[in-house]
Amino acid sequence: MIIILHPDTTDASPEYQQILAYLANKPNIKTRVHRIVGALRTVTEIYLIGDTHSLDQAEIEGLPGVERAVRVSEDYRVVGRHKDDARGGGFDYNGVHFGQDSLNVFAGLCAIDTPEHVEAMLKALRDHGQVCTRMGAYKPRTNPYAFQGHGKDCLPWVFELAGKYGIKVISMEITHDSHLEEIHEALEQTGRPTGVMLQIGTRNTQNFELLKCVGRQREFPVLLKRGFGITLEESLNAAEYVASEGNGMIVFGLRGMKTNMGDPHRNFVDFAHVPAVKRLTRMPVCIDPSHSVGSRERSPDGLLDVFHVTAQGIIAGANMVLVDFHPAPQKALVDGPQALTLEELPWFLEDVAIAREAYQKRCELRESKQKNGQD
Amino acid sequence: MIIILHPDTTDASPEYQQILAYLANKPNIKTRVHRIVGALRTVTEIYLIGDTHSLDQAEIEGLPGVERAVRVSEDYRVVGRHKDDARGGGFDYNGVHFGQDSLNVFAGLCAIDTPEHVEAMLKALRDHGQVCTRMGAYKPRTNPYAFQGHGKDCLPWVFELAGKYGIKVISMEITHDSHLEEIHEALEQTGRPTGVMLQIGTRNTQNFELLKCVGRQREFPVLLKRGFGITLEESLNAAEYVASEGNGMIVFGLRGMKTNMGDPHRNFVDFAHVPAVKRLTRMPVCIDPSHSVGSRERSPDGLLDVFHVTAQGIIAGANMVLVDFHPAPQKALVDGPQALTLEELPWFLEDVAIAREAYQKRCELRESKQKNGQD
Amino acid sequence: MIIILHPDTTDASPEYQQILAYLANKPNIKTRVHRIVGALRTVTEIYLIGDTHSLDQAEIEGLPGVERAVRVSEDYRVVGRHKDDARGGGFDYNGVHFGQDSLNVFAGLCAIDTPEHVEAMLKALRDHGQVCTRMGAYKPRTNPYAFQGHGKDCLPWVFELAGKYGIKVISMEITHDSHLEEIHEALEQTGRPTGVMLQIGTRNTQNFELLKCVGRQREFPVLLKRGFGITLEESLNAAEYVASEGNGMIVFGLRGMKTNMGDPHRNFVDFAHVPAVKRLTRMPVCIDPSHSVGSRERSPDGLLDVFHVTAQGIIAGANMVLVDFHPAPQKALVDGPQALTLEELPWFLEDVAIAREAYQKRCELRESKQKNGQD
Amino acid sequence: MIIILHPDTTDASPEYQQILAYLANKPNIKTRVHRIVGALRTVTEIYLIGDTHSLDQAEIEGLPGVERAVRVSEDYRVVGRHKDDARGGGFDYNGVHFGQDSLNVFAGLCAIDTPEHVEAMLKALRDHGQVCTRMGAYKPRTNPYAFQGHGKDCLPWVFELAGKYGIKVISMEITHDSHLEEIHEALEQTGRPTGVMLQIGTRNTQNFELLKCVGRQREFPVLLKRGFGITLEESLNAAEYVASEGNGMIVFGLRGMKTNMGDPHRNFVDFAHVPAVKRLTRMPVCIDPSHSVGSRERSPDGLLDVFHVTAQGIIAGANMVLVDFHPAPQKALVDGPQALTLEELPWFLEDVAIAREAYQKRCELRESKQKNGQD
Repeated sequence: MIIILHPDTTDASPEYQQILAYLANKPNIKTRVHRIVGALRTVTEIYLIGDTHSLDQAEIEGLPGVERAVRVSEDYRVVGRHKDDARGGGFDYNGVHFGQDSLNVFAGLCAIDTPEHVEAMLKALRDHGQVCTRMGAYKPRTNPYAFQGHGKDCLPWVFELAGKYGIKVISMEITHDSHLEEIHEALEQTGRPTGVMLQIGTRNTQNFELLKCVGRQREFPVLLKRGFGITLEESLNAAEYVASEGNGMIVFGLRGMKTNMGDPHRNFVDFAHVPAVKRLTRMPVCIDPSHSVGSRERSPDGLLDVFHVTAQGIIAGANMVLVDFHPAPQKALVDGPQALTLEELPWFLEDVAIAREAYQKRCELRESKQKNGQD
Repeated sequence: MIIILHPDTTDASPEYQQILAYLANKPNIKTRVHRIVGALRTVTEIYLIGDTHSLDQAEIEGLPGVERAVRVSEDYRVVGRHKDDARGGGFDYNGVHFGQDSLNVFAGLCAIDTPEHVEAMLKALRDHGQVCTRMGAYKPRTNPYAFQGHGKDCLPWVFELAGKYGIKVISMEITHDSHLEEIHEALEQTGRPTGVMLQIGTRNTQNFELLKCVGRQREFPVLLKRGFGITLEESLNAAEYVASEGNGMIVFGLRGMKTNMGDPHRNFVDFAHVPAVKRLTRMPVCIDPSHSVGSRERSPDGLLDVFHVTAQGIIAGANMVLVDFHPAPQKALVDGPQALTLEELPWFLEDVAIAREAYQKRCELRESKQKNGQD
Repeated sequence: MIIILHPDTTDASPEYQQILAYLANKPNIKTRVHRIVGALRTVTEIYLIGDTHSLDQAEIEGLPGVERAVRVSEDYRVVGRHKDDARGGGFDYNGVHFGQDSLNVFAGLCAIDTPEHVEAMLKALRDHGQVCTRMGAYKPRTNPYAFQGHGKDCLPWVFELAGKYGIKVISMEITHDSHLEEIHEALEQTGRPTGVMLQIGTRNTQNFELLKCVGRQREFPVLLKRGFGITLEESLNAAEYVASEGNGMIVFGLRGMKTNMGDPHRNFVDFAHVPAVKRLTRMPVCIDPSHSVGSRERSPDGLLDVFHVTAQGIIAGANMVLVDFHPAPQKALVDGPQALTLEELPWFLEDVAIAREAYQKRCELRESKQKNGQD
Repeated sequence: MIIILHPDTTDASPEYQQILAYLANKPNIKTRVHRIVGALRTVTEIYLIGDTHSLDQAEIEGLPGVERAVRVSEDYRVVGRHKDDARGGGFDYNGVHFGQDSLNVFAGLCAIDTPEHVEAMLKALRDHGQVCTRMGAYKPRTNPYAFQGHGKDCLPWVFELAGKYGIKVISMEITHDSHLEEIHEALEQTGRPTGVMLQIGTRNTQNFELLKCVGRQREFPVLLKRGFGITLEESLNAAEYVASEGNGMIVFGLRGMKTNMGDPHRNFVDFAHVPAVKRLTRMPVCIDPSHSVGSRERSPDGLLDVFHVTAQGIIAGANMVLVDFHPAPQKALVDGPQALTLEELPWFLEDVAIAREAYQKRCELRESKQKNGQD
C-alpha cells in the first residue's frame, strides 16, 4: 500500500508524526518514505511493506495529512503504475524537466578524451541551443586491456567547460560507489557549474549494491540502462531497487538487446518497448541509438540507421535521446565508428524535430478521436 | 556475374540466342534467366553461377543485346544490392506498385470466417479508399487441434466479394504447393475479379521446397515473412531461393522475433531492420505490427502499441503494412485479441499518413542537406 | 479422453463397432483412432476430441472391448504422458526396437556422395555390429546455390548396398511429400532390402503440411528434429501433429538451438532436455552431436567435443544417436569438417558404451535406493 | 608476450631485478606480474602489454632467471591457453587442490538461514567425507523487497561451525568490495577455522570494479560465474579481468543461460561448454546444476533432472559442482524448491562417483587409442 500525503505535509509536521506513530503500532508492517521534488510542489509517499492486507484503507485515508492511499498489488511498487493510480511521474533537475511528456537530447562524447574535443563538442551544442550532453569518464570495457576512461582526473575541467557553454546536465556513467563521491567533490570544487545525471550501464543493471548506492543519495538523478541479456521485467525491477531506496529521479534507458538476431546492427534495437515502459511505469524513457546500431551504415534513402532508429523511438514517445558525436571520430578512443560528426548535429536535431512533431500530431489526432467518441 | 540485357531483348531475339550460345561454350558455368516486369519495361537478367572468375567482363559487355555486366561477390545474387549496381527494384502487380519508395496498407482479416465478416471488412476498406487487403484461408497453427482455416472452399466467394469492392490484391498465406493451384483455379473460375499475393509464413521461411515452388511460377508476387528464430542473413537467403527460381516479385516481411526478451510484446519487434533490409537488398519491406505486438495494450498517451510500432516502421521507410482488423474481434476464430475494429480503420489510416508524411519530410531534409554539401 | 482397447480388439470386431456407435451418438465429439504396433501386441487407442467433459468415464470403461479410459487435460494428447497414464511408449520397426529404454546408434554420411564412400561406410558399420545408419539424399541448404543432395536417383543403389551390409534402418531426411513416395518406390523396386526412418529437419519442424503427410502414412517411422529457434513446447506440439494423424512411430531429436550463446559450438547443445522430453512425452529421444557441435575441436583431455556431448546425452538416458562419419571428410560435399573418420568408429562406439553403462549403473543405484526406502 | 621465470626466481633476486630493468628500457611496454602458487612450487610470470612486436624473444630467453617466453596472439592473455604453451593450470587453497583434472563437490545451503540448518548441513557433509560447501550470506535478488541474506552478522558463527566439521573451503557469493573485507575480518576474528572461495554471481560477471577488487587480493580464490545473457567470450574476458590484476586462483562456473529456449528448465543448461572452456583456458570448470535446472522434476527413470545434468557435466570433465541442499527445503528462504534433502546427499555423491568413474574410463580409453596410434 502507498500512502500519499498532502503536499504541505513536511517531516516536521505533527500530522506526519501521527501517521508514523499509527503505522508503528501495526504488526509486521515496515515503511519506506519516498519524496518526489517537482517544480511546483514536493510529494511525500509512504510505502508500506509486509502484511498490508490487514490494514484498513478508509481508516488510513481518514488520518490528517493523508491525501489518498493506493493498494498496490502489482510489481514495481514505487516506479510502477497502479490500478487506481493517477499520480504523475517525472522530475526537475537543475532547471531541466524530465517526464513522460518531455523530450531532451543528450548528444556528446562516448568517452572524454582531450579538452579540445570536449570544448568543440560543447560549443557546438551551445550554438544549437542544447543544454544537455553525454560525457564518459569511467568506461567499462569487455577487454581488461582496453582504455578504461580518464576517471576522476578529467572531471574538474570537463565540468568547468560545461559551465562555460551553458550545459545544465551531463549524463555520465559510473561503475562504482566511489565515482559518485568523486563527481560530488569535483562539482563542489569547481563551484557547481553544471549538473550530472548518473548513468548505470547495461553491465551493471543488476549490480544491486551500486543501484542501492545511487538510490540512497538524492543529489543526482539516475539514468538506468536496460540489461542487454535479461527480460524487461527484471530491468524494471532494477529501477525499483533505486527507487525503493528513496531516489525517484530515474530515467529508464533502452539501448538494444544482445543477440545475433539483431545483426547487422550491433544490438537488437528495442525501441518498440518505449510505449510498453511508459505503460508499466511512470518513468521517462530514454533511447540510445548509437549503441543499439553501432555503425554508420545508411539505407538507400541516404539516412543513417542511427537517424532512423532515433526517429522510431521519438515517434512512439521517447523522452530522452543519448547519442554519440565526436569532432574527429577517427581519433575517438571508444566507439568512434558509430559517432556522428559535429557537422551532422544540426541535421540530426532537425530530423529529431520532424519525428517529435509527428508524435505530437498523432497525440492530437487521438485527442480529437476521443472527443468525438471514436475512442 | 549478372548480365543485364537491353530492355528490348526478348527470348526470341537473335542477340539473346547468341549470348546463350556464347555462354554455353564456357566450362563450368550455369545460367539462370530472371525477368522483372515493370510498368514501363521488362528487364532480362542472366545469372551466371560457377567458375565465373575466368570470364572476361569487357568481352561480355561487348556482346550485342548486353547492356551491362555486374560482378557479384556478395550474397543474395538476385535480390541483393551490389557494388556497381544501380538497378532499381520493385514491381507492378494488378495495377498496384510495390517498391522501396511506395507504401501500401494491407488491412484485413487474419482468418476468413463468415461471408458477413468478410464483406463488412471489404466494404470498410473500399469506403476508405483501400485497394489491398489480407485474408487467411490456410492457417498454420502450433496446436494440431486448433482451427486450421476454411481452405479452398472459401476462395470463390472471397474473391468475388473482393472484386465487388474493388480490391486489387489480397495477401494470403499458403503452406503447401497445392494451395497455389487451388488459388489459381478459384481465380480462373471466378473470372479473376482480384489478385493474390502469396504469403509465406514465418514457420515456412526455410521450407525450401515451398520457396522453390512459388519461385518457379510468375503469376503471383510473394510476401516472404522473416523466420522468427533465425538470423536476418538466413531469411534473406530464403528470399534468394524464391528469386533464384525466376520470380523476382518479392516483398520481404518483418513480423517480430521469437524471444522472451520481447515481452510484454508477443514477439520482439524488429522494425529497426527496415532500413537494413533496404540497404542489403532491392526488395520492398513489409511490417506486420499485429503479430509483432499481439495485444491491444496502449500506452498512457492513449495510442495502442500496434499504432506505435506501425508508425515506427513507416517513419523509417517501410513499404507495406499487414495489419489485422475484424468487424467483431471477440468472434474472430484466430488472433481476435490483437485485431483492430472497423471503427478504428480511419484513425489507423490517418495515423499511418502522419508517419508517412514525416518520413517524406526526413527524406526531403536529407536532399536539401546533400544539395548544400552537408552530406 | 483416450479410450484404450483390449489388445485383441481389431477393427473388424463387434466390440469395436459397438464402441464407435456409442461415440457417434455423443454430441460434439470427434474421434481419431491410433494404433501402436509393438513386437508382442498391437494397441488400439481412440482419441476423443471436443466436448468430452460431458462423457461418463465409468460408463465407457464398462463397454465391451475397453480396457481403460484416461482423461487428458494436458497438452500433447497423443505423444504426452498423462496423470493416470501407465501406457508404455516405443515401437518396433524392421526388427529394431525404439523405446525410452533402448539405445541405437545411427552413424553414417550426412550427405550421400559416391557409391565408394557409401559402401566403405556401410562395411565399417557391419564390421562393428551396427544395423542402423544415417544417409542424406535430400539436403535442405541455407544458400540456394549450395549442393542440395543427389535426390531420388541415388536411392536404389543406396538401398541395395544397405541390404548387402545388413542395415535394417536408414535415417533419411525428407523435405517434401513427394520424397516419401520416391522412397517408397525405390524400396519396392529394390525388393525392400532395408528400412527407412523419415527424418524431418529443424527447418521443417513447423512445416505442418509435411508433418501431416508423414503422420498419415504408417509405413515408416519418423524422426522429428526439434526446431532450432522455437520453444520445446512448440516442437513437442509438432510431434503431436504427426501423431494426431495416426502415426505413433515417432522419435524426437535434439540437435542444438540456434543462438550465439552457444558459441564456440555451432549450436547451443540442448541435451539436458533428454530427461525433460522423456518426462513430458512417451517418445524415445535422439541426440545429434555432430550438428550441435559442428567442429572437430577437442579439449585438453584429448577427447573431441562431439564425443563429450554424445556421452552427456547418453548418461542422461538418450535413446538414439545420429552422428556424421565420412571415409574422407575432406571430400565430403556437406558438413565435412565435423565428420568423424571410419578409423574413429570403434573408439566412438566404445566411448558410447562407457556412457551407456554409467547410465545403467545410475538407474540401478536409483532402484536400490527405492527398495531401501531412500527415494 | 609472457615471460615465465625459473621457479626459484623470487622478487628479491638480482635476476628478477635485472629482467625488470631490461624491460623498463623498452618503449611502449607495460608489465604485469602474475604469481601462481602451487603445492610444490611458485611460478612467476611477467605479462608484457603494448608494442611487443619489437621485442626479441631469443634475447629475452637468454636473460638469467628466464625459463621461457611465449608469444601471445590470442585473447585471454593470462587465463588462456596459447599455441606453444605447455603451462599447467590450477592451484591449491587451504589444502584442497583445484585443477582441470580434479573434482570437488560443494554441496550446501543457497542462503544461510538458521544455525540449526547450517549445522545439520555441515554435519551431513562431514559424515560423508566432504570438506567443501556452499553457503550464501549475501544474496542478490531480482526483487528489491525479497530477502537479501543475513550478511556479515552470520559470518562468525558460520565459520566456526565450518571449522568444527572440518570444512576447508566455503564458496560464498559477494556483491560488493566491502564483503571481501567483512569476510577477511570474520575469519581473523574466529581464528581462521576454514577457508573461503569468493563467488561472483552471474549478475556481476561484468561488474568490472568488483572483478578488479577480487583480482587485486591474493588471499582468496575466486569462482566466477558465467554471465547468463552474454557470450562465452565475454565471460572469459571477465575472468581475464580478475587474472590481469594478479590473482590467478580462478574457477570458471557454468550455471545456465537465460532464454526461454531452455524451458522447462529455469535456465538453458550449458554444460556442453565444459570441454570448450577447458580448451580455451587453463581454468578449472565448475557446474551449478541447481540454478540451471531450478526444480525437482524427474524423468520416468526416477532420476531428478538435477542429478542428470550433474552427471552430464562430470562425464565431460567438470572439476567442481556447486549444488543446493537443505535440511528442510520447504523452510528455505531462497530457492527451496530446487534444493536436495540431506537424505539424498549419499545418493547424490554415489551418482557423481559413477559419472566421474565413467569420465576417467573415457580418458583411459583415449590414452590406449593414442598408444596404439589410433588417435
